Amino acid sequence: MKPDVVISEVGPRDGLQSLSVSMATANKKQWIAALAAAGLREIEVGSFVRRDLLPQLADTAEVVVFAKSLPELEVAALVPNLRGARAAIEAGVDKLTVPVSASEAHSLANVRKSRAEMVEEVRAIVALRDELAPDMEVEVGISTAFGCTLQGNVSSAEVLRLAEQLVRAGAQSCGLSDTAGYANPRQVSDLFRSLRSAIGPRAGAAHMHNTRGLGLANCLAALEAGVRTFDGSLGGLGGCPYAPGASGNVVTEDLVYMFEAMGLRTGVDIDKLLEARQVLSASLPDTPLYGMLPEAGLPLGFEERSHV
Amino acid sequence: MKPDVVISEVGPRDGLQSLSVSMATANKKQWIAALAAAGLREIEVGSFVRRDLLPQLADTAEVVVFAKSLPELEVAALVPNLRGARAAIEAGVDKLTVPVSASEAHSLANVRKSRAEMVEEVRAIVALRDELAPDMEVEVGISTAFGCTLQGNVSSAEVLRLAEQLVRAGAQSCGLSDTAGYANPRQVSDLFRSLRSAIGPRAGAAHMHNTRGLGLANCLAALEAGVRTFDGSLGGLGGCPYAPGASGNVVTEDLVYMFEAMGLRTGVDIDKLLEARQVLSASLPDTPLYGMLPEAGLPLGFEERSHV
Repeated sequence: MKPDVVISEVGPRDGLQSLSVSMATANKKQWIAALAAAGLREIEVGSFVRRDLLPQLADTAEVVVFAKSLPELEVAALVPNLRGARAAIEAGVDKLTVPVSASEAHSLANVRKSRAEMVEEVRAIVALRDELAPDMEVEVGISTAFGCTLQGNVSSAEVLRLAEQLVRAGAQSCGLSDTAGYANPRQVSDLFRSLRSAIGPRAGAAHMHNTRGLGLANCLAALEAGVRTFDGSLGGLGGCPYAPGASGNVVTEDLVYMFEAMGLRTGVDIDKLLEARQVLSASLPDTPLYGMLPEAGLPLGFEERSHV
Repeated sequence: MKPDVVISEVGPRDGLQSLSVSMATANKKQWIAALAAAGLREIEVGSFVRRDLLPQLADTAEVVVFAKSLPELEVAALVPNLRGARAAIEAGVDKLTVPVSASEAHSLANVRKSRAEMVEEVRAIVALRDELAPDMEVEVGISTAFGCTLQGNVSSAEVLRLAEQLVRAGAQSCGLSDTAGYANPRQVSDLFRSLRSAIGPRAGAAHMHNTRGLGLANCLAALEAGVRTFDGSLGGLGGCPYAPGASGNVVTEDLVYMFEAMGLRTGVDIDKLLEARQVLSASLPDTPLYGMLPEAGLPLGFEERSHV
């Protein structure tokens, strides 16, 4: 049965890249297998970036090959440029995710390219994909779409113009990321509705952060604005944590719980998701994991409540 | 200027009653003064209950007298029965808050009265109010309205029937409380909409818990369903914490931030609210306080973003 909402797990990429320690490849495989066993059907398993920049993800090609062996799993990887895209295509991913910043300041600081240069990079990646792997999807995530720690506010008009340029460059899907944890529900609702008006069904996923506690409220607002794919990170790993409890990425466990409690099918088995959390925790014993549902447990009578 | 939403602070009652330590009366006064100085216009300052049951709140009458000396502040107190109502009226509160449980099991366990007996108690409280203080408001909060740790699910039809009975008994306002942290946004939206259909403008406040991380998402759903008064507790004090980060009550700081970020006026000054948090923290140095906004701080450019 097709799920009502798709949860796209980004922990193995977005989570691990934020840690100073590297997870052993064998542990990554075990964790990804546990995520897939819980019913997650889309996992971003790593990045194809320079080894010296992100040694934590240097084994991404091997992880991709393993993940591709799991049934019914869409294997995504982040690529910041054409060189990364070539490596990802060679490794055999199902989907390329390209981050493009809406903030010129963030774009220059993060990838040393302007937004205009990144649009051209996406065009080149799409051309390479057309040549080597025409069935592969190219997805763009517009980072800092709701605000930026370097420049503050980001103009919605500029976000929408950038989305239109990226779609014209060939991106099949264009989502919005609250990289800095600046978004509020009204802004999320307005911007995703405008995005759908601008690029129609190519409007993509919501990648929300919980930096100021609004992660799930923002996901709810995105849902009401028509978004059906949501990024989450198991245990809230990654993002930009300020303090205990103040995780960056939205916690997959809490996100799945919210949707399931609302009667929306995610395809994810919460008990098995909590087992995957145990697998993650065992691999990273010194890294704090976040999430409220894992601590509180399911409400009494939950099975009767959901899916009615 | 009238605020768009009213934040009703319940920390001095709901927060302190959960602690094993008692806060000195002088510290309570200092904290309440700081809350009022931040712009909060409704504070539940204590409970009129048997001293042996809640020694932490035994000084409520003195606290009420102090709070009444602050300008423009609506002073509320919780009363579980007629005896408490008489004491609250004598102390001079502006508003009586009566908790009535939607779960028969919870009602019997919590106040040793059935729901039907509590409806009669409200009727008697209203009669006493009519006699002694006709301008005082009697508000009811229906606890366990979204589920109960003792009986699990609670029927929406029973919640609505109870609300109608309470309004007929004379309650001027009837809100809904997610005592157990069981609510989800769809349920909150449906039940508050039904409540408004059932009792019209007497539909009252949303009292949400963050036990499973959905506190702010549930407040957002309540807002969209027409609710305009929201309970919060500074630092998330109180409720039923399971673990660090898993506070019970919705954190006032995060709640105010969400609404202000959405461009809704709360009348609360966030910087002064964070000063009130410092006052609270100094009085309770060993008690963990919760909240994401206090850790992360306001986003860069926040002043330009809000109220647009």
